[in-house]
Formats: sequence, structure tokens, C-alpha cells
Amino acid sequence: MGSTYSAPVQPAPRVTEELDKPILRPCERPHPQETFDQTSIASDSFYGKIRAIYGQRVLKTQLEQLRKQGSYEAFKLGWHPKFDIEKLQGAKCTISSPPTLLWDSDVGKWIEAACYFLSTADGKGLPHASEFVSAIDELIAMMAKAQQSDGYLGTYFTVVDKAGRLKNLRDMHEMYNCGHLLEAALAHYRWSEDRKFLNIMIRYVDLLMKTFGPGENQRHGYPGHPELELAILRLYSLTRDPRHYAFGRYLVAARSQREPSLGGKPFFVWEAEQRKDTFFHASMASIDDGRYHQWHAPLHDQDTILGHSVRALYLVTAASDLDGTLLNDANRLWNDCVDNKMYVTGGIGSVPDIEGFSEFPHFLPNSHDEGGCYAETCASIACMMICERLLSQKLSGKARDVMERCLLNNVLGGASLDGKRFYYANRLATCGNEVADRSEWFEVCCCPPNLSRTMGLLGGYMWSVKTKSQTISLDIYLYMSGERTVKLPSGEIATVEMSSEMPWYGKTTLRLQAPVGYEWIVQIPEPEYAVIFNVSPPSLITSTDVEGYHSLFLPARSTISVTFDMPVRLLAPHPATHQDTLAIARGPIIYAAESYDNTKMEGE
Amino acid sequence: MGSTYSAPVQPAPRVTEELDKPILRPCERPHPQETFDQTSIASDSFYGKIRAIYGQRVLKTQLEQLRKQGSYEAFKLGWHPKFDIEKLQGAKCTISSPPTLLWDSDVGKWIEAACYFLSTADGKGLPHASEFVSAIDELIAMMAKAQQSDGYLGTYFTVVDKAGRLKNLRDMHEMYNCGHLLEAALAHYRWSEDRKFLNIMIRYVDLLMKTFGPGENQRHGYPGHPELELAILRLYSLTRDPRHYAFGRYLVAARSQREPSLGGKPFFVWEAEQRKDTFFHASMASIDDGRYHQWHAPLHDQDTILGHSVRALYLVTAASDLDGTLLNDANRLWNDCVDNKMYVTGGIGSVPDIEGFSEFPHFLPNSHDEGGCYAETCASIACMMICERLLSQKLSGKARDVMERCLLNNVLGGASLDGKRFYYANRLATCGNEVADRSEWFEVCCCPPNLSRTMGLLGGYMWSVKTKSQTISLDIYLYMSGERTVKLPSGEIATVEMSSEMPWYGKTTLRLQAPVGYEWIVQIPEPEYAVIFNVSPPSLITSTDVEGYHSLFLPARSTISVTFDMPVRLLAPHPATHQDTLAIARGPIIYAAESYDNTKMEGE
Repeated sequence: MGSTYSAPVQPAPRVTEELDKPILRPCERPHPQETFDQTSIASDSFYGKIRAIYGQRVLKTQLEQLRKQGSYEAFKLGWHPKFDIEKLQGAKCTISSPPTLLWDSDVGKWIEAACYFLSTADGKGLPHASEFVSAIDELIAMMAKAQQSDGYLGTYFTVVDKAGRLKNLRDMHEMYNCGHLLEAALAHYRWSEDRKFLNIMIRYVDLLMKTFGPGENQRHGYPGHPELELAILRLYSLTRDPRHYAFGRYLVAARSQREPSLGGKPFFVWEAEQRKDTFFHASMASIDDGRYHQWHAPLHDQDTILGHSVRALYLVTAASDLDGTLLNDANRLWNDCVDNKMYVTGGIGSVPDIEGFSEFPHFLPNSHDEGGCYAETCASIACMMICERLLSQKLSGKARDVMERCLLNNVLGGASLDGKRFYYANRLATCGNEVADRSEWFEVCCCPPNLSRTMGLLGGYMWSVKTKSQTISLDIYLYMSGERTVKLPSGEIATVEMSSEMPWYGKTTLRLQAPVGYEWIVQIPEPEYAVIFNVSPPSLITSTDVEGYHSLFLPARSTISVTFDMPVRLLAPHPATHQDTLAIARGPIIYAAESYDNTKMEGE
Repeated sequence: MGSTYSAPVQPAPRVTEELDKPILRPCERPHPQETFDQTSIASDSFYGKIRAIYGQRVLKTQLEQLRKQGSYEAFKLGWHPKFDIEKLQGAKCTISSPPTLLWDSDVGKWIEAACYFLSTADGKGLPHASEFVSAIDELIAMMAKAQQSDGYLGTYFTVVDKAGRLKNLRDMHEMYNCGHLLEAALAHYRWSEDRKFLNIMIRYVDLLMKTFGPGENQRHGYPGHPELELAILRLYSLTRDPRHYAFGRYLVAARSQREPSLGGKPFFVWEAEQRKDTFFHASMASIDDGRYHQWHAPLHDQDTILGHSVRALYLVTAASDLDGTLLNDANRLWNDCVDNKMYVTGGIGSVPDIEGFSEFPHFLPNSHDEGGCYAETCASIACMMICERLLSQKLSGKARDVMERCLLNNVLGGASLDGKRFYYANRLATCGNEVADRSEWFEVCCCPPNLSRTMGLLGGYMWSVKTKSQTISLDIYLYMSGERTVKLPSGEIATVEMSSEMPWYGKTTLRLQAPVGYEWIVQIPEPEYAVIFNVSPPSLITSTDVEGYHSLFLPARSTISVTFDMPVRLLAPHPATHQDTLAIARGPIIYAAESYDNTKMEGE
């Protein structure tokens, strides 16, 4: 149940120092995000070319933006005008915390992204690699200095408001920042094998684990914006320190608990009373009753996904990395999101004022004039993260199809091809004089660097491999062109090479090479949109035990080809959307018809 | 059918000059709005005291605001900085036309309101009466000068853009302004028996009837914001000129017709092409496909009410004043609005960006953070106008209950008790740092003067009387305190006096006096919220043939009392609203619980 905080007995504890050996996760298969760097995406392929835009242009653009924004310099702990929250807040809706509170996470996401590109074979030829490397070193050096004696690391509450430290977990994003910096540190360690950044973050995490938790002398708190949960569970897959797993599980399970020691109140209510809400005043019903921050009920009792989309989906991402009930809850809420609250484009979030979910299933207006539309890039990225974790826990054609739909239709469009402009919201239509163009940057700019780290990690979304004695299991998630090596227990190497014409043509060739005596079990996806699906030689197809997949048993050295048709489809919206529209799709791609490029309709 | 434009054969035409005799409408009963001035509301009663606020303060405030705004002086046809639309429009969403385009209607509504108060017995003691009278005279004198040789009357297109006259009916509100000035002229004629203002407006209407219509040499147009339809049907009930009825009917029936002479296009599409939409660009799906302006389908084919709430409900108001199919269509769309798209407060419109209706039945979020909420004062006033017309066509307890609900919960709150501040939107809850207070005025200020004319006309919403030979039929709409005289065919006088403790207590006494030989048929409403309903003497109750009403047959001189209980009710929202709330009601009044006056909920 969501209400027990005890650390799991299994797996056996290991000391944090042993970081050399290969690690397995609770679900006993390697987390693709931990093996992405064994994959090299073909540079001349569709995904390779897009990835190159990020490696060659977007990362550079974003580094310049971070410098311009002030978040880069902020770790020097100097004063910045934007720290003057009261002034900034004046005009703002009180639901959004001041942009400077998110600066540390912007930097963290950029470092994480840069490290991914630096550590993948196809990223070796980065034009600005040396500039990135020295920026990363400088930032880490600044952080080492910025870290307080007790381990705390955060620019705003070190420079501006020491007394306010960790007093407003609901709004102030300290744990969120810590999470992104921790993921950056994990990526940095994986690339550099240097522990200095990781040590900084483990020290900070130790402070948070000491301060917050179920213990008598701990504050029973959790963040208003989940992210530390995701990061610490990734840390656990490296350290296998059960305290890391337990804390990640606690932050998810403690949510919405009525703590006797807090007068039976939910943490955010108690916390707001403690600080007398002098600065932030929760002036929305959905904040007061917890829906916005997903503490209106324990995850186990939530039958529909509500509130701020990214917060909700990050919480579900963490739960999908956990065990037992929480994993089931993640499955239920993800299915509700996909079945009832996702746009045909994979866009998520139809209530602009909360950047979030409607109470209404199938309330998916295309624009503000129809009642709302948001479809934040980060929300679809979060959905991809959930898909990847669900797939690594249990293969599913549905999770694969959704991951591909989000990636191609609500994520890749988040950046322009020149790598200089970005979408935050990906509305299906715009209203009045709303801006329909991409922007160079945003005051709150979570999306652009989130895009970069997702592209950096793309190899991790492609497939996953598990080895057991002489059997190599290969699960294919996305049809892409690339190759990867597999380290076998014997120390030998197996290689997989996939060359695909997706997303344009359903033609893919797979070449497998393993030492004599090994065999492959390959799970080949049959996408929802595929018609006339063939694997040759056909005799290889076995009756499938996974919906949307075919299991193939193959000898050590095999070459197979997969072909399927992708006829143009006209997709009609669910009747409950009350929409009189059709979407044009071919394969995984939804096509957009810009009104500016077309003559106006005449109401017929 | 909604597609035939022919003028009705009945009733027999009368020449416009004969304005002296008592008039009957097509539905063969006096339009309450044409007999309101026979009613005097008791000044010491609930409604009398509120009405006094308008007569003594609101009208004065609004006259000052009109002078400050510039709309008063505008009829002198001088230049005003606010006429510089391009400059004004820059920052605005293109769906809202420039405020100055509505100035003429603001003045019209104020004159109409002032005339109502001047012509009712309880309005005789107006403290500022002489100032109002000279303002009215000055405005009418200015209009007489401002009227062009061909009859056109409109400040903006006379001063700024002569060439643009009547070229953009969709956005520029010329017909809307004409409608409100015409209703003002009717009120002025009724009060002063002076035809000068009415003649001005009839000249303008003649120009419009010549320019627009089904004829070969006419433009097949209709306004983007209905109102002229309502006004001209009221004009018809005075003139009985069938051309007036036919034009009112045409403007409703022509809507959405695909005109062969316009290349089979709807008028607004053709019109936008003619002017190449250089200034206004319809950049919303709901404008492009006609939903916003209600031309997406003929009224007869609309199975749910859509688009801008006030425009939609004004169109339905006009249809509810018409015959046959259009009256049925009005009934169907009004029932859809009330059953599926109205807040418990009688508020209407849940999509802020279009000030309008959702495609979703029961999509009634309380605030922006829940997905939207608008509930414009004018929309509930429009609903009251529909109720009053439906009641005058066919008595109905439902229409009566809805009219009372709108008046008490989403209309009266539109002005502060000091008569100086007003609501435009009446949201059930506010979000973030939205303004929850009333404002002194609005750039587009349709609501405040609309409130005044509604309060001025309040006696017309109270009851209606019809006389046939020796029988006087009295239909009671609202329980209020007041009296009225009834002119009998014999020239004699009957009087009705109602004294009621509503809305606080279900206790009402009715005193009827008619000459010997007359008898009364009185329709007494039993409100939806009434429990233990008694009429004494009880023997008088007859089996009711109208839902929500009791028919009483009474001798010439009768006194009866009506009593009912109004226990406190907890109203649960329709399940499809997905809302976890309760509304507290007693009788017709919905009670509001201000979060600022109450401790925060704790998500329990």
C-alpha cells in the first residue's frame, strides 16, 4: 500500500563505494537509460540527423541562453536582479513560482544532455565539444564552491533567503532542482567516470534524506514538483544503496498521507500554515484541495489523472520505477492518461491555467477558443519516460506505440530545425493573436533543455537487452537505424545492427552477431498502424505472447527483415470530444494543416 | 422553415402612422415589456429597494461614465483618440471589436433605462430626473444632427471611416448599435409620447431594410451580434408594419443560408472576402466555421447551443418572439442551455476565450484553474429575456423558475449596493491573482447599462394580463410586491395588488379588484423549491393544466394568500460535471462561501 514507508528487504544492500560492477534494477533487467551509450544511432538516418541538430546546434544555443539568462553565472552565488521575487511576482499568477527558482534545474538538464552526447559514439564529432567540456568543468567547480557545509546546494536560497531554505517544498522547486542536478551528475559520472559531481550530489541527497522522511525527527515532506524521485531511483540503480530506493519510494508513497504528527494534515497544508503563507498564497481550488500537486488522494486511490500534467506524469514515472502496488497504480493512471486525456498528437494537458488535466475524460479542445489546449513538450517527454520504464518492466505494444507517437508528434516539433527556437505548449490550433511561432527562450524554460537530454538519451528509447546464460533477449522499442554492442557474461561481445526506413517506410533489417553457442530471443513490434506485417524468413515467426509483438528465436548469427504497409489513415476523434474534425495520419505521424497555408473553411 | 423569408400574411398590415391604438403581438397577448409601466413596484419591498439603487445612483454613475468614456460626446461627431483602432487593436485579441464600435449602444441602453425609470410611477421621485431629461434631450438632438441624409446613424463610420460603412457586419456592431438605439427610442416614445427619436430610428431602419434582405438588389446580410432582431420585433409590436416583422424574421432565418448570389457562401465568408479581411482576421476555428457567430448551421439544425453566449442567447430571444419553427427552435436551444450548460447560479458561458458555450454538456468548471468560467451578466439577462418571451407565448413553471434564478443570482449581483461598481463576468471562483472585485467601468461595457434597463423594465418581468370579454387572465411570473392597473375594453379599470415577502419568505397576498360582472383567471406559480404549498381559501385551487402553476377562478373582488416553505437545500452538481462540490440554496437564492472569509479546505 502507498502508506508503508519501510525500505524493501530485497535486494541485499551494497555499499555506495562499489560503483564498478554492472548493476541490475529491482525489475531485474537493465534500465535502458543506463545502457543508452552502448547504442550508436546511424548519423545518416532520420533520427540520426535530428540528433545531430541537437549535438551541433541546440546544445550550443542553449548554453548561450543559460549564460544570457543568468542561471550559468548564478552558481557563483552573486546577486541577480531576477532574484527580486516580490517585484517579479507582482504581475504573475501566484501558481507559478518565480523563474529563478528553476534556474539550477535548467543548468542541470543542459549538463545531463551534453554528457549524453559526449558519451555516445555518434556524439564524438561534436563541433563544440571542447567548449561544452570546459563549461561542464566550470559549472561543477562552481557547484563545489557553492555547496554549503551541510551539503545544501541551491543558488536562490543560498544567495537571497537562507532562512527560507526547504520551508516551501510545494512551490520553491528545491527538490526538483536537486533531482535534475543529480541526473546530470549520473550522466557526468557515466561519461567521465569522474565522481566529483556525483559526490557533490550524493552529499546533498544525504542532507535531504536526513531532513525528510518517516522518522520521528524528520519532516514528513515531499516536493510540489516530482523529479528527485526519478533521479534518486536512477541513483539507486547505480549504488544499490537501499536508503536511496527507500527514499525514492517514500517521496511517492508519503504523498497525501495525513500525518498525526502534523495534526493529521497533509504536508503542504501543514507547511503553508507553518510559514503563514506570507509569500505564496494558494488561491486556486485545485491547489487548496491538492489536485494540482496530486496529493488530493493517495496514488492508490486516484482513479483518474489530475492536476498539473508534468508534475502528475513525473510522479507516475517514479511510481513506474517502483514495485508492487505503486507500479500497478502507475499503470492505471498512465492508461487513463493515454485512453482518455491524450491528444491524437500525443499532446497532454488541455487546461492552460494549470498546464494540466481536465476532470473531464476526452475534454481535448484544439485551442483556447474551443475551451483550452496546452500539450506541453515536457508532458509528452514525461509520457515517453513512463513508456520506457513500463516497457523495461513488462513489454507492451501499447506503451511502444504511445512512446513513438509522443516522440514524433509532440516532442521532436519542440525545437526548430535550425536549433534556435522552441515550443513550450504545442497547441493543435491557436486563437486570436496567440503566438503560434516558436520562441528563442522562456522565463520558465523547462522544455528546451528537457528536449536536449531526451535526444541525448535517444538510444535508450530504441531497445533493451538482457542476457541469461547463453540466451540474449533483445526487445525492440522503436524502429530506428543504429547498432549496439552487448557485453556477455563470458566477457565476449555480441552486436546488434538495425537499419530502418522508419518513420517513412515500414522496412527494417536486423543483423545479429553473437559467439557460437549463443541464441537470441528477439521481440519485434507490430505497430498499431501496420498493415500486412511480414518478417522474413517467415518461418521464424512464433506465436506471440506479448500484445503488439512477435517473439523470434534466432541462431547466433542471423539477419532478418521486417516489412509492413502504412496506408494513410483518417482518424476520427472520440465521440465524447464533441469534435467535428478528422486527423490525417500515416504510420506514426499525424499531419498538420496550417490554416495560413490553406483557404478558410466555409462551415461546410 | 428557417429558410423562408416571406412576411406573414397575418396580421393585416397597418400603416406606420397609426401609433395611438392599443397593440397586440402575433402571439395575441400583450408583451409584458410593453405594459411594464402599468406596474408600480412597492418602494419598501426587496425589489423596490434594489430598483431604487438604480434609479437614484446607478443611472447617475453611468451617465457620468458615458461622459468620461467619450461615448456621450461622440454623437457630436468630433474626433476621439480612441477612434484610432489600429493603435488600440495592436494588443487586443482579434475576436473583440474595438470598444468605440459599441459606444452608440452604451448610450442607447442608458437612454432606454432612464426612460423606463422616468415612466414608472415609483420612478417619479428620481433625484436626478431633470438632469436625465436634459441629457436625453441633448443626446437626441445630437443624433438628429448626426443622422446622415440617407438615414445612417453611427458615430465611428461617420467620423472615421465613411467608406467602411456596413461593410463588416460580422465585427463592427453597426446593426447591434441600431438595435439598442431603437429600443431606446421605443422606451422614449412610450415615456414622452414624442416621436422625434423614434422617427430618427425608423429612418435608419428603413435604410437597413432597403440595403439588406432577400431581394435581388439587396445584400443578404445579418449582424455578427444579434440585437436589431429583438428591437425591430418590439418596433413591430408597436407599428404592426409587416415589413418590420418580416425583416426581424429575415435576420434570424437568413443566418447560415448559403446564398447562390454569394457563390453559395455564408454571408460572413463572402463579406470577409469582399473586404479581403485587411483589418479583422478571423483567426479562431470557431469564427471560421461559424460557431462563434451561430451561422455554422441553420437554427433549425442546431441541436446544441454554441459560440458566444450573449450572441447565441440574443438570437434565441429574437426567435422566441417569432412564429412556428423558429419558436420551436428557440425552445429547444433554450432548454439545452438551461439543462446542460447553465451554472447553478444561472450563470451562462464556461469558455472565457469566446465568452461562450463549450461543446461539452455539463462542462461547468467553477474557475479558470478548473478549465474555465465566465457567466457574463449580459448572458443571464438574455436568458431572462428569453424566459419572459417564452412565458408570454406559453406559461411554464420552468421558464419562471429559471428567470428568477438568473435575476437573483447572476444579474442583481452585477452592481454593488452603492451603485458605483459592476461585474462583467460572474465567476463562481477565481484563480491565481485574477480580479475578484467589481470594476468602476469596462472598455467594453455592455453589462452595466444592460443591468439598468433590465431593472427599469422589472415590472414587465413580474406578471402579465390579458382581457377577453368579461374575463381577466393574470399570469404571475415573479413573486414581488407591487400593483398594477388593467384598462378594460369597457374603459373601466381593474387593479391588482401583490404583496410578497419573497425572496426571503414564501408568503404572498394578492388583492384583485374588478367591476361587477368580471371574473379573474389567475395563474399562481408553485416554484421548484417550494415545499408544503398552500393557497387560501384552499377551495379555490383548481387542478392545474400548466406545469408549475395553479389556475384559480376568482370573482371580481378577491383576496387570496399563497404560502410555501423554503427549506435549506444542498444541491449536488450533475455527475457529468465531475465536481466534488455542493451548493447551498434556500428558495431561489444560491449562497456563496468566500474562501477569504473561511478557513482553507484540507482536501478532505
